[in-house]
Amino acid sequence: MKPVCLVMGAGAGIGGTVGKHFAANGYHAVLCRRSDAQGLKRLVADIEADGGTANGYLLNAIEDEVIEDRVAAIEADIGPIEVVIYNLGAQIGDRALKDTSYKAFEMGWRLATFGLFRLASAVCPRMEERGHGTLLVTSATAAVRGNGGQHSHAAAMGGRRMLCQTLNAEFGPKGIHVAHILIDGAVDAPDTLGRLLGPERFQQLRDTRGAADGLIQPAHLADTYLHLARQHRSTWTHEIDLRSFSDTPWWNHA
Amino acid sequence: MKPVCLVMGAGAGIGGTVGKHFAANGYHAVLCRRSDAQGLKRLVADIEADGGTANGYLLNAIEDEVIEDRVAAIEADIGPIEVVIYNLGAQIGDRALKDTSYKAFEMGWRLATFGLFRLASAVCPRMEERGHGTLLVTSATAAVRGNGGQHSHAAAMGGRRMLCQTLNAEFGPKGIHVAHILIDGAVDAPDTLGRLLGPERFQQLRDTRGAADGLIQPAHLADTYLHLARQHRSTWTHEIDLRSFSDTPWWNHA
Amino acid sequence: MKPVCLVMGAGAGIGGTVGKHFAANGYHAVLCRRSDAQGLKRLVADIEADGGTANGYLLNAIEDEVIEDRVAAIEADIGPIEVVIYNLGAQIGDRALKDTSYKAFEMGWRLATFGLFRLASAVCPRMEERGHGTLLVTSATAAVRGNGGQHSHAAAMGGRRMLCQTLNAEFGPKGIHVAHILIDGAVDAPDTLGRLLGPERFQQLRDTRGAADGLIQPAHLADTYLHLARQHRSTWTHEIDLRSFSDTPWWNHA
Amino acid sequence: MKPVCLVMGAGAGIGGTVGKHFAANGYHAVLCRRSDAQGLKRLVADIEADGGTANGYLLNAIEDEVIEDRVAAIEADIGPIEVVIYNLGAQIGDRALKDTSYKAFEMGWRLATFGLFRLASAVCPRMEERGHGTLLVTSATAAVRGNGGQHSHAAAMGGRRMLCQTLNAEFGPKGIHVAHILIDGAVDAPDTLGRLLGPERFQQLRDTRGAADGLIQPAHLADTYLHLARQHRSTWTHEIDLRSFSDTPWWNHA
Repeated sequence: MKPVCLVMGAGAGIGGTVGKHFAANGYHAVLCRRSDAQGLKRLVADIEADGGTANGYLLNAIEDEVIEDRVAAIEADIGPIEVVIYNLGAQIGDRALKDTSYKAFEMGWRLATFGLFRLASAVCPRMEERGHGTLLVTSATAAVRGNGGQHSHAAAMGGRRMLCQTLNAEFGPKGIHVAHILIDGAVDAPDTLGRLLGPERFQQLRDTRGAADGLIQPAHLADTYLHLARQHRSTWTHEIDLRSFSDTPWWNHA
Repeated sequence: MKPVCLVMGAGAGIGGTVGKHFAANGYHAVLCRRSDAQGLKRLVADIEADGGTANGYLLNAIEDEVIEDRVAAIEADIGPIEVVIYNLGAQIGDRALKDTSYKAFEMGWRLATFGLFRLASAVCPRMEERGHGTLLVTSATAAVRGNGGQHSHAAAMGGRRMLCQTLNAEFGPKGIHVAHILIDGAVDAPDTLGRLLGPERFQQLRDTRGAADGLIQPAHLADTYLHLARQHRSTWTHEIDLRSFSDTPWWNHA
Repeated sequence: MKPVCLVMGAGAGIGGTVGKHFAANGYHAVLCRRSDAQGLKRLVADIEADGGTANGYLLNAIEDEVIEDRVAAIEADIGPIEVVIYNLGAQIGDRALKDTSYKAFEMGWRLATFGLFRLASAVCPRMEERGHGTLLVTSATAAVRGNGGQHSHAAAMGGRRMLCQTLNAEFGPKGIHVAHILIDGAVDAPDTLGRLLGPERFQQLRDTRGAADGLIQPAHLADTYLHLARQHRSTWTHEIDLRSFSDTPWWNHA
Repeated sequence: MKPVCLVMGAGAGIGGTVGKHFAANGYHAVLCRRSDAQGLKRLVADIEADGGTANGYLLNAIEDEVIEDRVAAIEADIGPIEVVIYNLGAQIGDRALKDTSYKAFEMGWRLATFGLFRLASAVCPRMEERGHGTLLVTSATAAVRGNGGQHSHAAAMGGRRMLCQTLNAEFGPKGIHVAHILIDGAVDAPDTLGRLLGPERFQQLRDTRGAADGLIQPAHLADTYLHLARQHRSTWTHEIDLRSFSDTPWWNHA
């Protein structure tokens, strides 16, 4: 039986691509996303066409019990979850304080912070019992610095990062690898950055930066996710940053 | 008319003491806390006995509209809020993941992160119109590192810190001073640390450490709060850490 | 007898102004700088005209024994050093790697890192014996992030910051207050920024930013130095950042 | 012709093991270390026995021109240096300030900071001309926090980290990958930790922690070094931390 890799937030960018990569490397992929049944079906079909195995589920992670029930069902019906990729983003673009509604602020927290807490609550006790498991958390620049207009996103991601450190403190010594992956650069992903910028500005960015290597390529990023999942437990990484060679790190100015 | 200093979380420790200190230095203090009508009354009476002026309100900050209405009422009935001390804590002690309920996790966020967002939403537009104002946010070690058992607290405080940086990015250039005050040490405060430890262990800590200077003394801490509020805007501090000389900073080991 | 405040790097910007402020608040100021005998004389005369007391010394801190001998002489002839302001900078402007000579790289270290180590070696044992003392270290953005062209400066300041934390770990519990003061913004100082930019660009910056509050004003900054020196040892600050309200913090982009 | 991987500091721990791993993966290894001609010879022989190629040189990196001449000779006689592993440590154990001589403090800087600057000065212009290259810098906890007794080491490593960020800012966009690898845990290495602790305490640590996975295993660590060297330039890592699953991260307390 293959080890299961559960991807929460398996869109056309990082999540789906990482799921595919794990499927190509011996994992059974369970792909969860909120919408686009067609895209999800295609992703599963792609994996199967490459000789891998996968299931896909549409689910709205912020609804009560949805995450918890999915984890229980996977463990009961498919197999033990060995790796979790938590990839739910909460970027809504820059908004002045007065344009950031209470609802938008709370939604950021529900997606980026509370969702991870719920998933960890469901999955870590099972991993702890087995003595092993991996929790890879996609994170963002906003986790390490607040910036203009990022009220909801930065508060949510800052909470996510501190939660990852807390999970690591409790579960690392129990054999569970928790990694906080700081995606500190624009990603060549139509579902997230593309939607944020709109098709025209997104294409413009791709043209200017050079889509091939001036934006983070999910297919290459997936190598690092897999590497982290395979690290021997005598040498685990908790935090790693990633960006394109031509991008400016968060601590530098353009 | 005196400038108003609003203290959200004016217990017997940092909040009440800082409020008293501002009242002794030319501010009208508005003291808000959740419980202990007697203690609040005494605090106001103390301030008045010293020749100062103050109002006290019992309020539950996590209830809808309570923060917003209080800010509106103060501005309408008392005067423009010049300084806000956001001092609501969310420490619930160390709890394993399995002992941290969803409710406890959410409560941490409501008190430490969302409450600040609500307060800023109510107060910053008024300060922006006036071109000045100060928002001093009491924070904790958990804002800069997660630790075993701190799931709720660290996620909440990490969010608070990133929110402070975001508020600073938007409102600093508009003349509003936002400061994130990292209280990185045990505070000699019966209402918070005292309650957390219980009376015996608290007294033991006071005896061991030396209550006089081995624990943070709120009365001395208040000097730094006032100093921050008085900094000339050509030299503003956004982040400052504080602890007793004999305490170990968060980045060191005992 | 007044407590002595020794300023290493007492030019026309932060160092001299802070020295003057301490002299106006009960300290005997000992002002050391590398050059400009006239300026130094004027500074001492200004302090005396205000009713204070001061000595001035020209010295080249990177020469062997110069720091050590000065400390010994002050302690022997003037009195115990209560406060040290270490204010030697090492900014040489942005230089590509190929334009950064070994000599320039080493000079940065000698001024910014090794000089502090030598001063601490001379002064801390004396303070330790007395059970009190304060070491305030002026630092720069380069201490927390490297940036293009800052090879010498960032390496030197990064070393300075870690040295401050190490000194704090050893001497804090012995009653010596070590503070790392992160000057994260342009300072209205003709001797440093003025020399770096040249007179025309410096005046242009003053005109654009508004010299009154768009650049750090040393006279106001001095308030914070004095505040730190006066903090009660139950609430000491080790790290604090400062910049003008209209400046962008190092972690944000313009 | 194979790409060259130059290891500066190729002892029996991280350096030699990483060099061996690169040699096993298509690189010609050039191994430099200060002493132990026998050990070096054995390392080269091991690589050759595995079908790889390597050269070994004894050199004292702090001597004038030694690094520069070696780089020039390799480029002239062996081939273009594609990857550099800078692995010179400077840990001398915990020493009180009074027991840290000027010489010891300077030696830390010469090994950990200046040596990297010299190497970068020699190698980066060549890599820049070729449009690619990788500089992997082994670093230590002391690069991110000073601790009791670490005066020399922390100052040196803090400088190293800021230098890496500066090199990255200049050379990243030119196609040179600079990574700062934070070894935040005890390494199972007789040459460094073993020498620091002495044979008895080292064996005791190995027994207690479990040498198999409670200490960082260089052979497994080497996987991460190779992974970093192979990252596609659309997704480069600048900073990564590593420790054993059972070790406590620097930001937590035991």
